[in-house]
Amino acid sequence: MPEKSLDVVGIGNALVDVISPTDDAFVEAQGLVKGSMTLIDTEQAESLYRAMGPGVEMSGGSAANTMTGVASFGGRAGYIGKIADDQLGEVFAHDLRAVHVAFESKPSTLGVPTGRSLILVTPDAQRTMSTYLGVSELLAPADIDPDFVASARITYLEGYLWDRPEAMEAYRKAAAVAHAAGGQVALTLSDSFCVLRHREAFRDLVADEVDVLFANEAEITALYEVPSFEDGLREARRYCDLVVLTRSERGSVVAGGDEVVAVPAEPVERVADTTGAGDLYAAGFLFGLTQGHDLGTCARLGSIAAAEVISHVGARSLTSLARLAERYLS
Amino acid sequence: MPEKSLDVVGIGNALVDVISPTDDAFVEAQGLVKGSMTLIDTEQAESLYRAMGPGVEMSGGSAANTMTGVASFGGRAGYIGKIADDQLGEVFAHDLRAVHVAFESKPSTLGVPTGRSLILVTPDAQRTMSTYLGVSELLAPADIDPDFVASARITYLEGYLWDRPEAMEAYRKAAAVAHAAGGQVALTLSDSFCVLRHREAFRDLVADEVDVLFANEAEITALYEVPSFEDGLREARRYCDLVVLTRSERGSVVAGGDEVVAVPAEPVERVADTTGAGDLYAAGFLFGLTQGHDLGTCARLGSIAAAEVISHVGARSLTSLARLAERYLS
Repeated sequence: MPEKSLDVVGIGNALVDVISPTDDAFVEAQGLVKGSMTLIDTEQAESLYRAMGPGVEMSGGSAANTMTGVASFGGRAGYIGKIADDQLGEVFAHDLRAVHVAFESKPSTLGVPTGRSLILVTPDAQRTMSTYLGVSELLAPADIDPDFVASARITYLEGYLWDRPEAMEAYRKAAAVAHAAGGQVALTLSDSFCVLRHREAFRDLVADEVDVLFANEAEITALYEVPSFEDGLREARRYCDLVVLTRSERGSVVAGGDEVVAVPAEPVERVADTTGAGDLYAAGFLFGLTQGHDLGTCARLGSIAAAEVISHVGARSLTSLARLAERYLS
Repeated sequence: MPEKSLDVVGIGNALVDVISPTDDAFVEAQGLVKGSMTLIDTEQAESLYRAMGPGVEMSGGSAANTMTGVASFGGRAGYIGKIADDQLGEVFAHDLRAVHVAFESKPSTLGVPTGRSLILVTPDAQRTMSTYLGVSELLAPADIDPDFVASARITYLEGYLWDRPEAMEAYRKAAAVAHAAGGQVALTLSDSFCVLRHREAFRDLVADEVDVLFANEAEITALYEVPSFEDGLREARRYCDLVVLTRSERGSVVAGGDEVVAVPAEPVERVADTTGAGDLYAAGFLFGLTQGHDLGTCARLGSIAAAEVISHVGARSLTSLARLAERYLS
């Protein structure tokens, strides 16, 4: 790879999480599907917020979580996403910059508020997300700073942003810039419902632009309409140099070139909240990749980061991932 | 006591906490006194926020925390405090109403934002608070709804509000209304520096209006300029029907009439964050009082609530205090 000032730039929905413990009955009564992400509008957001219990606000957003993870490992990370000039936008920007993730996007003054994700955590530690995208969904090609993207070895895109045509264009632009500058493009499919809504567009993007694909079992089988994990893996390998599939407590499988590596999940004493597991797995994997580690080590770093984040409430790591990695790498 | 629709109404600074783990060196470098509360202005708040690490936002405010605790015990609580019509104000109001604390104060449209407390938690679980009061400090007599205050058996005032003359007047008004309606007035001294700044005004209020006084060792000795805890207790008993003094891990001492009761602290496996310990102790005590329990039981309920809140990050209880109390009371 050419010399770059950043290891990874993430692009995604800039969101603040509102995390609230609840029970299965409440999730059901609200008509939500446990474990999934649902997009909601202003009215639905107000109604759900009124009904739910007290919350804790923490910066979130899938790709942003991943970038804080890369930074926690000691990697050089940047982020592009749309916030408003409001209090939640300030919180979001602060929490990125406080961990040294480069974030230069100017707050929008359109009057549309910063997006938020209402996250209900059930006693089984599963998270059910209802996301009000707010201004984050207005990400457009003009928001993609070519120099910023070109400065990164890997440009990492989150599938969640895929719900708007302008965001798709922004992704296409970022991917083109990244490749032209000798960088790689990585994509996470984010959510199986998101994949179902945009299957063709996702398939095209993966075939045309994606070097490193992250997905879980539900997402990869939804993308290729295949019955099994193995079929999904085989299909994805036809299009991407590197396919990284996670399987929750069953660990992950990585395929690159002729190599296929299966890595177990890190043991966790007590799973408190699965929010951010996939985001932090990607952080560890991407960090490993930019450091030139072999695929097994990359996957292992992903597992370590995922294990840390599910052991507490919140989608960002609370301890130094560099220190955890040191223990493993030494 | 006469029939009342509320058990306790709390009046205080409506604040959102921004909680961030840090180390002693950072607290020192910022010129802060560990364990204390410092008032900061807009500029200081911006500078400290820029310097500090990522945070978690949770509704706070001393008396508001106490009211959520009363509600968690199953008591009927209300709250008066000033928020702005901004995102943090919405969060604050939601988190009170979500636990059924009556909160009718209209958001201010003056353009001054909702107040926040930047709370640094060191590895020893101590909290150091830098509070930007924002609109909360504009609480004035007009904000005291006489019917609302009169509907409560106990009106609970936090000392933190004492830094503005208008707030003092608001307190005087609330106390007069409460007494006229046959209710009691409780006050917590909140912070020894706060007491030092307004010693005479506090002494007058205690002598004139306070039936139940809450304080810790540093606060009570500062109030009466006496060398020892015992001297402070003796002095306070001259003015208040009920004196409730907390001593961190050494438990609490309660004096009422001829009775003096010492109650040990509840054991806690691991203290994570002492924020809210005093607030939740007061919640348990006040709840017990409104239920007609003896002083020892009231103090014990306080200890139970304090132990719950210091076992995790954040100043409000995460589990049902009613359930914890049930175990003790049965």
